[in-house]
Amino acid sequence: MRLSELGEFDLISTLAARVSDHDPRVVLGIGDDAAAVRSDSSRLLLATSDALVEGIHFTRQTTNAFRLGWKTLAVSVSDIAAMGGMPAFALVDLGLPEDTDIEYADEIYSGLQACADEFNARIIGGDTVSSPREIFIALTLLGEVEPGMMVSRQGAKPGDRILVTGTLGDSAAGLALLTGRNCEIPAADKRFLEDAHMEPIPRLNEGRIIASRNWATSMIDISDGLAGDLTRISHASGVGAVIYADKLPYSDAYRHFVEACGVDPLALSLHGGEDYQLAFTVPNALAEQIIAQANELDIRLTEVGRIKAEPGISIRYPNGEIKELLAGGYEHFTGTEKI
Amino acid sequence: MRLSELGEFDLISTLAARVSDHDPRVVLGIGDDAAAVRSDSSRLLLATSDALVEGIHFTRQTTNAFRLGWKTLAVSVSDIAAMGGMPAFALVDLGLPEDTDIEYADEIYSGLQACADEFNARIIGGDTVSSPREIFIALTLLGEVEPGMMVSRQGAKPGDRILVTGTLGDSAAGLALLTGRNCEIPAADKRFLEDAHMEPIPRLNEGRIIASRNWATSMIDISDGLAGDLTRISHASGVGAVIYADKLPYSDAYRHFVEACGVDPLALSLHGGEDYQLAFTVPNALAEQIIAQANELDIRLTEVGRIKAEPGISIRYPNGEIKELLAGGYEHFTGTEKI
Repeated sequence: MRLSELGEFDLISTLAARVSDHDPRVVLGIGDDAAAVRSDSSRLLLATSDALVEGIHFTRQTTNAFRLGWKTLAVSVSDIAAMGGMPAFALVDLGLPEDTDIEYADEIYSGLQACADEFNARIIGGDTVSSPREIFIALTLLGEVEPGMMVSRQGAKPGDRILVTGTLGDSAAGLALLTGRNCEIPAADKRFLEDAHMEPIPRLNEGRIIASRNWATSMIDISDGLAGDLTRISHASGVGAVIYADKLPYSDAYRHFVEACGVDPLALSLHGGEDYQLAFTVPNALAEQIIAQANELDIRLTEVGRIKAEPGISIRYPNGEIKELLAGGYEHFTGTEKI
Repeated sequence: MRLSELGEFDLISTLAARVSDHDPRVVLGIGDDAAAVRSDSSRLLLATSDALVEGIHFTRQTTNAFRLGWKTLAVSVSDIAAMGGMPAFALVDLGLPEDTDIEYADEIYSGLQACADEFNARIIGGDTVSSPREIFIALTLLGEVEPGMMVSRQGAKPGDRILVTGTLGDSAAGLALLTGRNCEIPAADKRFLEDAHMEPIPRLNEGRIIASRNWATSMIDISDGLAGDLTRISHASGVGAVIYADKLPYSDAYRHFVEACGVDPLALSLHGGEDYQLAFTVPNALAEQIIAQANELDIRLTEVGRIKAEPGISIRYPNGEIKELLAGGYEHFTGTEKI
């Protein structure tokens, strides 16, 4: 059944049925002019908003409805994680062409709710609108953080070391495979990389540990490639950064991909985007200790560079050569520009 | 200059320059992974989200960029007003085709900021994304309300009288004029009606007075026509409503419009939408007193109907005839369905 055949109240009740907003903090959930929730003054309220648009951020070929729902919330959870916070409440604006199958909309909500369950968020409201041609989802996520634990993009100092969680480039490799790049790699690797693109796991637990132990002088989630996101930290902190070309952490699947496809591993790990790992800076003297402590907690941290006083982002190769990255990571308007 | 020619940081700084987030409650505004604000535990946090899509909710012919920005925020302020609350913080997701002129985006933000200034809201974040063809704006507004003052859609009781602020039908008449309806009415009337459509004034002051004096048993803002919005109150409260056909409040401009154009005044006042007035229910015994008190405060309230125990929305004509409105106001998926 298509949306255009469905009554308004049926649509709302179908989608609302997917959503669980049972929470003692939710006074009024879906179904009024606004939702009402209890806030906690001992914490700061965090708020982040992201929009995903069909044809720009996804196509119906590169994801399915469930995973689209998951990912839309996951990218905002990643923003909250990068502040050291915890997700709390989400509002979802969904734009759907009138010929959209109701099952598709329903599956988007199932994916949203699965991600909400995983990261302890409640969907408390939103708006479902007709869109002439493309599907879009705009999601605002509210979170909380203890004031002393919040980590911003400001605060990186010359000499600080740059650490990242997990591995880089997997999502961009997955996207390449999903959009027709045909290379001979094992099926399990292919699945791993495609999953990294379609159903990213935001580093919420890692963000909370980094924040609660006061490790980071600054932090960001890697959504637009390490180079672009370090540019943001550099701008906000009034510094620059050098990235070590030979130190970027790669998964086995990513190594197999770049070998089989003849791709420069740096192309996707520096500029690929959508890793949803965390990049953060730590005081020089504490780096080894932090990496060791994280290791004990089964959290993989890798040192990938150093903060420098001079503005700009450069890359240092094993032979000692240093190259300035084009315009310090500036990019033209091509997709998502968080304000 | 078009967006596609503009650097990302230039776009962000251009739009961010339009925005004032100076407020002691804003710890971290635009420019990080998430905004951080101080909340007040003595109040409930309200949250509402609305999306406006080009070709569905507006065209570049029926509004300009400034008024589009204004209206996007105004419709959410109206939701907060309908809860008895006050606006606080807004996040704006803006989808723009790459050939959009930067001035157009800039003007949208000017309109958003003008409305934010008027109703004491701060724009603290958002996302600017590429959209293949249509402009869309999805806005989440956070607000606050004292727990004892919050008014929901629940609570209307049989016998309650239904009051509305202001006049009905102006916005729908304005839209008809903007989309080519050609009638001989005075230029000042035309401007009044078109302004009502393009730059609605949410009834924030009225909502606060209604809530603080504990007048209302239920309240909603009239966004989809009085009939549709009373259906929502009826559903939420488990009641029905009868509307008095001859009691609906009209502006002089609206009267001139329906006469000159030969339009049934009920068509637009019941089903036209986008009035952004408040409809609320009051105990039978208090209605006259409330209307008189409001009058002293220069607030025009009009009694337009009565809550009844039986479900459904009906309309009572001066000759005593009562007609059930089709399917109790149910409408098919055509635009905006708030969940």
